[in-house]
Amino acid sequence: MSWLMDVSLGSSPADMLLFGNLVNVYTGNVSECYIGVKDGRIAYIGIRPIPARKRVNLDGKYILPAYIDGHVHIESSLMIPSQFAAAVIPRGTCCVVADPHEIANVRGVQGVRFMIQDSARTPLRVYFMIPSCVPATSLETSGAEIGLQEIEELKKSERILGLGEVMNFPAVISGERGILDKIKACQGMVVDGHAPGLRGEKLCAYVSAGIHSDHESVTEDEASEKLSFGMWIMIREGSTAKNLSALAKIVTKGSPQRAMLVTDDKHAEDLVTEGHMDHCLRRAAEEGIDAVDAVRMATLKPAEYFGLKHLGGIAPGKFADMVIVNNLKEFEAKMVLLDGKIVAKDGEYAGGISGPVPKESLKGTVNMKKLQPRDLSITCSRGGRDKGQVMARVIGIIMDQIVTEELRCQMEKDRDEVKPDPRRDILKICVVERYRGTGRIGKGFVKGFGLREGAISSTVAHDSHNVIAVGTNDSDICKAVNRLRETNGGFAIVSGNRVLDELPLPVAGLMTTLDARDVAEKSEGLKEVTAKLGCKLRNPFMTLSFLALPVIPKLKITDYGPVDVEKFEIVDLFVN
Amino acid sequence: MSWLMDVSLGSSPADMLLFGNLVNVYTGNVSECYIGVKDGRIAYIGIRPIPARKRVNLDGKYILPAYIDGHVHIESSLMIPSQFAAAVIPRGTCCVVADPHEIANVRGVQGVRFMIQDSARTPLRVYFMIPSCVPATSLETSGAEIGLQEIEELKKSERILGLGEVMNFPAVISGERGILDKIKACQGMVVDGHAPGLRGEKLCAYVSAGIHSDHESVTEDEASEKLSFGMWIMIREGSTAKNLSALAKIVTKGSPQRAMLVTDDKHAEDLVTEGHMDHCLRRAAEEGIDAVDAVRMATLKPAEYFGLKHLGGIAPGKFADMVIVNNLKEFEAKMVLLDGKIVAKDGEYAGGISGPVPKESLKGTVNMKKLQPRDLSITCSRGGRDKGQVMARVIGIIMDQIVTEELRCQMEKDRDEVKPDPRRDILKICVVERYRGTGRIGKGFVKGFGLREGAISSTVAHDSHNVIAVGTNDSDICKAVNRLRETNGGFAIVSGNRVLDELPLPVAGLMTTLDARDVAEKSEGLKEVTAKLGCKLRNPFMTLSFLALPVIPKLKITDYGPVDVEKFEIVDLFVN
Repeated sequence: MSWLMDVSLGSSPADMLLFGNLVNVYTGNVSECYIGVKDGRIAYIGIRPIPARKRVNLDGKYILPAYIDGHVHIESSLMIPSQFAAAVIPRGTCCVVADPHEIANVRGVQGVRFMIQDSARTPLRVYFMIPSCVPATSLETSGAEIGLQEIEELKKSERILGLGEVMNFPAVISGERGILDKIKACQGMVVDGHAPGLRGEKLCAYVSAGIHSDHESVTEDEASEKLSFGMWIMIREGSTAKNLSALAKIVTKGSPQRAMLVTDDKHAEDLVTEGHMDHCLRRAAEEGIDAVDAVRMATLKPAEYFGLKHLGGIAPGKFADMVIVNNLKEFEAKMVLLDGKIVAKDGEYAGGISGPVPKESLKGTVNMKKLQPRDLSITCSRGGRDKGQVMARVIGIIMDQIVTEELRCQMEKDRDEVKPDPRRDILKICVVERYRGTGRIGKGFVKGFGLREGAISSTVAHDSHNVIAVGTNDSDICKAVNRLRETNGGFAIVSGNRVLDELPLPVAGLMTTLDARDVAEKSEGLKEVTAKLGCKLRNPFMTLSFLALPVIPKLKITDYGPVDVEKFEIVDLFVN
Repeated sequence: MSWLMDVSLGSSPADMLLFGNLVNVYTGNVSECYIGVKDGRIAYIGIRPIPARKRVNLDGKYILPAYIDGHVHIESSLMIPSQFAAAVIPRGTCCVVADPHEIANVRGVQGVRFMIQDSARTPLRVYFMIPSCVPATSLETSGAEIGLQEIEELKKSERILGLGEVMNFPAVISGERGILDKIKACQGMVVDGHAPGLRGEKLCAYVSAGIHSDHESVTEDEASEKLSFGMWIMIREGSTAKNLSALAKIVTKGSPQRAMLVTDDKHAEDLVTEGHMDHCLRRAAEEGIDAVDAVRMATLKPAEYFGLKHLGGIAPGKFADMVIVNNLKEFEAKMVLLDGKIVAKDGEYAGGISGPVPKESLKGTVNMKKLQPRDLSITCSRGGRDKGQVMARVIGIIMDQIVTEELRCQMEKDRDEVKPDPRRDILKICVVERYRGTGRIGKGFVKGFGLREGAISSTVAHDSHNVIAVGTNDSDICKAVNRLRETNGGFAIVSGNRVLDELPLPVAGLMTTLDARDVAEKSEGLKEVTAKLGCKLRNPFMTLSFLALPVIPKLKITDYGPVDVEKFEIVDLFVN
């Protein structure tokens, strides 16, 4: 890179010369200096100015390496990668490592390819992990599979860094060939883990299978044990999981050698109001983590873990990805440079989005027959054909959690049919298979939504993302489900057979092409409308999205019907 | 690795279960625990015992990951890799990253291949860097070249980790295509640097060319600047360079994030008396470096720098390479395990050396005609053919340093011939081209050896390793040089036309197949014999070996004659 040498040696001018307080993540020092940029790279760092085409005096502000989010599901923002990028770059992010687990469940390799293609439309460096558990279980119908052949295919992309969070830790520990072969196929690359609560001998076994990191620790003790086994600890502070307050001590008491900050999931409205990694840094500072250590956890550490040698620090030859912040407490991003170009100023994105959304992404993924209300009726032959009482398993929602209870409720039966009972907040829940037109519908009951009328539906339903709907009556549920055929997926709210509000998510039924502000506004609108229908949940569509996830206890539902997660089997809706 | 999981989960016994104080390089904790080993890997770490075939209670001793020497020239020990391994394993070393720069200058790719092959004869993990500067300069004749084609060939070996120390930093900074192309050819791999005293803008330029480390810092300030540019700092504490005392503060004051301990060169006698990385650790502790940080610098840090994912720490799934030491101050190695097998106890190697020395290595590399004393005479036509005085450039040795002075001495001339003057300690020095039978001989004078009679000769002469000899008279020098034809290289001491002592180094003229104790004994013997001939130097053969190195100031000599290193050109022996 002799063109850089010409700049540092003064024989050719830098494109830009910054002067400010450099936070050196290698030494921990913070000191005033000049930083010269040429053709997207750092060409010079020193206390003397060098010739430059443009000079920027930052008036004592701080120059940090731009941030890396080492674990994020972009789909959770409901935005496609290019729009996600436009939302996070102004906050100081230069790179994310995404696990496209959601779209892979819908569209497989093709879905991952779309993510790679669309993410090339902005300067954000988006790397991907190969989703390791698609489909997540055998108890549901997914839109695609990622097997060994698909892994080999994806590995060819230079955007792929390794294997995504190996969630099926019981399969690893019990030595199941399928998952061990996937880990083996990614030997030499990074293999992310996901091991909530795993300790002792089982953790030993999991790590020895070749897992390098974990982002599921919720106590200091758990994280420390994982660290002691050589794992890299990703501390989450996103929209869903917030672990910094519990885990900060592994850094303040010990050493930040193998700890990093990640978001995992970040909703558009939180991106707009809180920010992205800048929010993690603010929170880290609040938790007493030394500012430079915190910055390391968002820059150098993920770069080291993922082997991203040209990122994570400001040093000669590295990519000129920098964020200028007001101070090391608020971390307010005043200016962001990617590849040496100013791509954001005062929180406004200025980097552009090139080209159109890749066309194939818009092909519909909601392939189901139009339903009639009678398709949704729940019948029960127990206790004869007359009126009477039956005992049903009911999913019991716990506010702000994704685990559920299994409730048992007496329900009225009228000529075999058992209807929901909104007065007792027992609503009907349905999961409709949406990929193969099988017409398969899992039906059940749920308590906790509080809807007094109408229904809501969604094509975001972890992990297989079939259509899921909850409502007070079959007619509205049917309308809400059918509406998603017309929008190619998304969220819908129906009452009195009328669509009250909706957010189409035509990209795989998971993402819109709208920008963060629009998505945030739409999301807030949806919350208001469901609240008006009586819903008591803070984020009903998010709660809904986890009710089809048959790996989180206790009672869930898939297109095959209710699932007892602890027994890991489909169970009858009615019990004796 | 399901067989490991069976052990940690208790369904299959460990091969061995150790109980002692584990030094955890990931967390920094030191605590008593059980460590289970199976098939060469760490299968279990925990406070409960598990079933095992063999149990070893270490009585409170400390269990450390075995050591990694990140930068060493094995040839400097005068031993072939297998014997070097047998000497360092009992001291706790499991892995070295060797730069086979010396043998590459003699035998090129074939020489590097020999090093790889021979190093496979013991359990030591020997990795190699591709020598980047062969030949070192255009002012000398080397036995081989390593160009782009050779680099591509060597890169195929899984034992190759990257490009060896890029010594020709002036070429890098001035943008010379040849060296930049070599760096480019090793993109994605590790590229070691060598930049003594390089600072500021020039250091910026050097780093931006793609150099990742440096081991030449001699002051804290220099090392800190290199660290601040993202370089990894290798702190040398070997036989030649001893930088720990000057550099310890970069670790004690700052952070050991990118610092490691290396030896660079270690002579057999020092390996026998001091040890290897264990000596570095003792020295680090003496310099006030925290014991765990010191251990990290000899284990985790080099493993991270070189991307050796299965080494550097004791964690599930990693190679079971461990050293048991008495305490964290003396670091006396009581037991060493490599691949889970005990390979040394109480300083005695027990790992065996398999198979014979690879045969081709023994093919002679001393290809020169038998010399006559008259071939060595120095003539001078200046000032007519009569008796008189001439002014000669004389290499002035500085005790214990490899830099020299350029002296100017009046010499007697007798019928064109200028003879050495042992009374004034002005001896004759010759470098004889030994690869192509050209008969080319560089001749000159040297002051500082103090020999009163006889001559010494050697085929170890950095970097091209031609034959170098110093003596009081042509007859003894001639005999000493010719003797090396018979031994295929090595060291010889001659006086009165008789070989007084010698150490044959038949492997490329650089290494013997003897073990460390024998080499140490022979080396001591050679020192005694040269001392008896009047030599005042502590290590005359080492001093001799650097006199042909035309990159270290000021006056040196190659087969082309005296070299003014600062001017970087061959100069006349005589001046007006």
